[in-house]
Amino acid sequence: MTADAEVLSFRPSAEQFVWTFGGAAPMARIRPGSVLEVFTEDCFAGRVRSKDDLVSQVCDFPFLNPQTGPFYVEGAEPGDTLAVHFVSIEPARDWAASSTVPLFGALTSTTATATLQPPLPERVWIWQLDRERRTCLFNAADSDLRVELPMDPMHGTVGVAPANLEVRSALVPDAHGGNMDTPEMRAGVTCYLGVNVEGAMFSLGDGHARQGEGETCGVAVETAMNSVVIVDLIKGQPTPWPRLESDTYVMSTGSARPLEDAFRIAQLDLVRWVARDSGLSELDAYQLLTQTVESPLANVCDVNYTSVAKVRKDFLPPRTSGYGVHERLRAQAERYLSEH
Amino acid sequence: MTADAEVLSFRPSAEQFVWTFGGAAPMARIRPGSVLEVFTEDCFAGRVRSKDDLVSQVCDFPFLNPQTGPFYVEGAEPGDTLAVHFVSIEPARDWAASSTVPLFGALTSTTATATLQPPLPERVWIWQLDRERRTCLFNAADSDLRVELPMDPMHGTVGVAPANLEVRSALVPDAHGGNMDTPEMRAGVTCYLGVNVEGAMFSLGDGHARQGEGETCGVAVETAMNSVVIVDLIKGQPTPWPRLESDTYVMSTGSARPLEDAFRIAQLDLVRWVARDSGLSELDAYQLLTQTVESPLANVCDVNYTSVAKVRKDFLPPRTSGYGVHERLRAQAERYLSEH
Amino acid sequence: MTADAEVLSFRPSAEQFVWTFGGAAPMARIRPGSVLEVFTEDCFAGRVRSKDDLVSQVCDFPFLNPQTGPFYVEGAEPGDTLAVHFVSIEPARDWAASSTVPLFGALTSTTATATLQPPLPERVWIWQLDRERRTCLFNAADSDLRVELPMDPMHGTVGVAPANLEVRSALVPDAHGGNMDTPEMRAGVTCYLGVNVEGAMFSLGDGHARQGEGETCGVAVETAMNSVVIVDLIKGQPTPWPRLESDTYVMSTGSARPLEDAFRIAQLDLVRWVARDSGLSELDAYQLLTQTVESPLANVCDVNYTSVAKVRKDFLPPRTSGYGVHERLRAQAERYLSEH
Amino acid sequence: MTADAEVLSFRPSAEQFVWTFGGAAPMARIRPGSVLEVFTEDCFAGRVRSKDDLVSQVCDFPFLNPQTGPFYVEGAEPGDTLAVHFVSIEPARDWAASSTVPLFGALTSTTATATLQPPLPERVWIWQLDRERRTCLFNAADSDLRVELPMDPMHGTVGVAPANLEVRSALVPDAHGGNMDTPEMRAGVTCYLGVNVEGAMFSLGDGHARQGEGETCGVAVETAMNSVVIVDLIKGQPTPWPRLESDTYVMSTGSARPLEDAFRIAQLDLVRWVARDSGLSELDAYQLLTQTVESPLANVCDVNYTSVAKVRKDFLPPRTSGYGVHERLRAQAERYLSEH
Repeated sequence: MTADAEVLSFRPSAEQFVWTFGGAAPMARIRPGSVLEVFTEDCFAGRVRSKDDLVSQVCDFPFLNPQTGPFYVEGAEPGDTLAVHFVSIEPARDWAASSTVPLFGALTSTTATATLQPPLPERVWIWQLDRERRTCLFNAADSDLRVELPMDPMHGTVGVAPANLEVRSALVPDAHGGNMDTPEMRAGVTCYLGVNVEGAMFSLGDGHARQGEGETCGVAVETAMNSVVIVDLIKGQPTPWPRLESDTYVMSTGSARPLEDAFRIAQLDLVRWVARDSGLSELDAYQLLTQTVESPLANVCDVNYTSVAKVRKDFLPPRTSGYGVHERLRAQAERYLSEH
Repeated sequence: MTADAEVLSFRPSAEQFVWTFGGAAPMARIRPGSVLEVFTEDCFAGRVRSKDDLVSQVCDFPFLNPQTGPFYVEGAEPGDTLAVHFVSIEPARDWAASSTVPLFGALTSTTATATLQPPLPERVWIWQLDRERRTCLFNAADSDLRVELPMDPMHGTVGVAPANLEVRSALVPDAHGGNMDTPEMRAGVTCYLGVNVEGAMFSLGDGHARQGEGETCGVAVETAMNSVVIVDLIKGQPTPWPRLESDTYVMSTGSARPLEDAFRIAQLDLVRWVARDSGLSELDAYQLLTQTVESPLANVCDVNYTSVAKVRKDFLPPRTSGYGVHERLRAQAERYLSEH
Repeated sequence: MTADAEVLSFRPSAEQFVWTFGGAAPMARIRPGSVLEVFTEDCFAGRVRSKDDLVSQVCDFPFLNPQTGPFYVEGAEPGDTLAVHFVSIEPARDWAASSTVPLFGALTSTTATATLQPPLPERVWIWQLDRERRTCLFNAADSDLRVELPMDPMHGTVGVAPANLEVRSALVPDAHGGNMDTPEMRAGVTCYLGVNVEGAMFSLGDGHARQGEGETCGVAVETAMNSVVIVDLIKGQPTPWPRLESDTYVMSTGSARPLEDAFRIAQLDLVRWVARDSGLSELDAYQLLTQTVESPLANVCDVNYTSVAKVRKDFLPPRTSGYGVHERLRAQAERYLSEH
Repeated sequence: MTADAEVLSFRPSAEQFVWTFGGAAPMARIRPGSVLEVFTEDCFAGRVRSKDDLVSQVCDFPFLNPQTGPFYVEGAEPGDTLAVHFVSIEPARDWAASSTVPLFGALTSTTATATLQPPLPERVWIWQLDRERRTCLFNAADSDLRVELPMDPMHGTVGVAPANLEVRSALVPDAHGGNMDTPEMRAGVTCYLGVNVEGAMFSLGDGHARQGEGETCGVAVETAMNSVVIVDLIKGQPTPWPRLESDTYVMSTGSARPLEDAFRIAQLDLVRWVARDSGLSELDAYQLLTQTVESPLANVCDVNYTSVAKVRKDFLPPRTSGYGVHERLRAQAERYLSEH
């Protein structure tokens, strides 16, 4: 990355949103190291704006989780890794929406966990966002109760075109990333994604002003975002499942069903990542991580469930610090922020 | 709880350890509010003492996870709740053991996730515990690497006699508690357990000097403990699944397979707990918790997997603070600690 | 087995029914080769007798699935196998009952697959049994429709005391047998059960006039039975999971959650059983069974789900015919039937 | 269907095979009622021809499970149902291949059920097909054993373009059909598939000379096929999950993970199908099917597992006989066969 890094600002028109990973023509070509300043629409395509806007009535399936992108990254080829550093994720509105959705969510039967029961009632909550004080205000629907919570903005959906000739709905998380819905995807974090097709075809969307772990009801505090990311490329190094790195942690993700498989994928990936970078044998890494890993859930509601395995870098042997690019991207982000 | 609370010290002889929840005669009868000062042996019954002590050779199945107890709590009846406050959990040795165990753990096939592959190699790690500096030292088996980690002592196994006339192995976590293996079970926390039989028949064991979330390889940093707990009784209030309360959090647990069911149980229990105590409707509590819950895994290796759902008390409406006994038990614990 | 085999008739009084596997004193001691003529009560303990007898109101949890037994089999020790041959299973009444039960069954949320939805409505169906014509008559509750089906009597619950010092509810299927709920457990079949404790402690119950595969709503066509079984003992041969043998098939079972683990257990057990008896390598047996196995589900509603793996004996290499006792027990059964 | 039904013969060239459902241009347009005479290549694209042709070496991922098609069915629109009647499925060769594949199959860890164990050994079995005697000859790899089995040809992969803008690998079964791998997909059966896109885009492949239920090792007796199907269209009637109908049975399928979800989907679909066609209430249909359904597994190895729920038509109320087209297609098939 050099001082002359490209900065690309992109705010899609209504027709430019994309609803899949794979299968869409690139919105732009960018060079590795470029800064993307993008607007992302909320998961409802902006159609849920009041308590009366029931998802089943106002949304137009499968046109959910609109993606900003895809961006063709020059030089990216299968076997490489895309490093996406989140410089900032800022709500573009002073409100956000959440809801129950029929046959969707963890505490309801669904189209897959199919039962004879009627679905849960459909309900919408409009949250107030105070961008100055960085808070989200919950208004209970059935009583006067209000609760103010810290804002903790994140992107639910971050990914590249999938492997195996597939095109996946933007609602799906899998090895290509996609709708992982982890609160770890916040500003200051670098996300590593294995490249499956030429150009990688990176896109993002589904901003959340905040979200609990598991996204239990299936829908977070959904809002449009103005986000800045740096997109870099690591040549010749594959990444089997999406990984994240913060100043403090390295993290692996797994997305699968049942949930124990998502857990296994993330834990095995972290064991192998740590073993490779630390010189520990796989069994030693298995032992060390068994005693140190944190295992927060990301989503237990989507087409695949997503589990995160994370470990503090200072619990690992020296020089086991991820891909060796996070610090550089972090510094580039700080330069960007100081200039804007 | 009054100043004249009983203090019972109990260090089981080798013959006094118990290997089940339910089915064992009580070691002692205690009054609600009593302080128990107990010794617990490690999960291997103390038989793994060096790298050459392979579990499959030195342990005598099913005599694993020895329990200290059970204690008959006077006045406890089905429909009540036992409140167990952890005053202190201190390693009784300056070393601890961990290991792989054939066909046990998350990253191996098991007797249930049955495959034709040979099991992983069996290996033992002996950890050094520095009780002054409160650290655990990891010695890699296949290289010279050492890593020093903070000590964070906990009990893997805490429970009462189960319902439904059953007797369960001390290796099993379920609605009666048991082998939940959550790092949240540390000093300063109150654990709430629904009473299923007269006297509740409380026991505990399986101390860990520290453990990651999920206990991936199936075995934590296992050591004997000297622990102090206050056992109190809440009459007439049932608790469907084990719950925990710290100064900062209220937490529910679920133990089941597949892992998503453990998640569902814990989340639903927390939704209902918060709804009842806060006056929120169930759907409002579902929404609020979706945006605030933390969902760390406890174990993904035992007979049932255990998932934790926890939320900061200051994210909840005022006066939604658990059973109303934690603060009192916390104060009693501080008095005890100041006097001992 | 010789001509002087004991014949024991046992009809439990109301107080003699047992509700667990393990933990109960034997009703009688029998010699290997004995014939047991027993009465078994239905799963509701006979309390559901009309459409108005809702399970949640008339039944007394956990007193469900009453067992006839346990029988102490002389000489049976851990490591042996009990061979239970079903001579006849005959409904003891001209009616049977089925029902929905709140939070129980495959097409409803349950206490484990926990959701915020209200349970399905509770409903009872009384079936007419025509023991002459060997039919079961279904009367629809919400319309005039009637359907006559063939009777195919079976026992849902057949087992021995479990291992690991445990006592399990009679509603649980596991390695000790128990509530497997497979329609394969019909007259003419031999069931092999691994012995876990001295005397084996065999019991049975939960007769079904007929049942589909999976027992989808959780409850079959439940009725009391007059059943005749021969209980034999195979010394020194362990059986890890319950197996069955008919004139045509050998079958393994697995009971676990998630359902794929039940499948894996049954399939792996059958691969190993066939490999051992046929001289095929495990990989060859894996290949042969992949192309020949039938995999009907037994139950997908109980505490553990049960999967069956069965293969026609004439698809296996010669002399791969189970334990070598089925033909003898079959002949003994025919002698018994011709004499009674 | 009229006497002038189109007959289209299509044998794809090597370049014409397709590897996905969705995303491919049609090979031909056909009118409803047309007869398709097609050649399908085996799942290995014909590359495994001897015991030395290891899948990991000779196959070119993701170019597996080549599809013959897609065929654009004139007039087919979302909300319609395609009825595909299998007239004949005949092996095109006198041999077939099967194999283990690293990290694929039910009795091994996989990329999703991820463990630290090394994969099972890779092995190939070449089966001899005797098309006169209609047998498949198994040759054990590690001994001299041979077993002759009846031939029972079927197609593992039958489907249409998926919904939700997706393109799925031909290895995936889901609501669009695809790689369901059920032995029920044999000649004489009609398969009903919901149409998701204009023209439906039907294709098929993955012929098996025979297969057990569950396809345990992940690979059946794989061979090229000459197959004849009649493709008809039922306007205005949606089909949520693939259904099948034989002269004797109606059947629903579900494809999902965990396996209990696949079971739930198939059972719920059959309950609703029967309820709608019979006039039974849903609870009555639930009860009737609980006592009559057969629940054989299809595959427990693919990206989604597939479960079948089937019931004898003569166990259902009169006039509950599927879509009302099977008999007509069956007659058309017989006319075709008598003329060819």
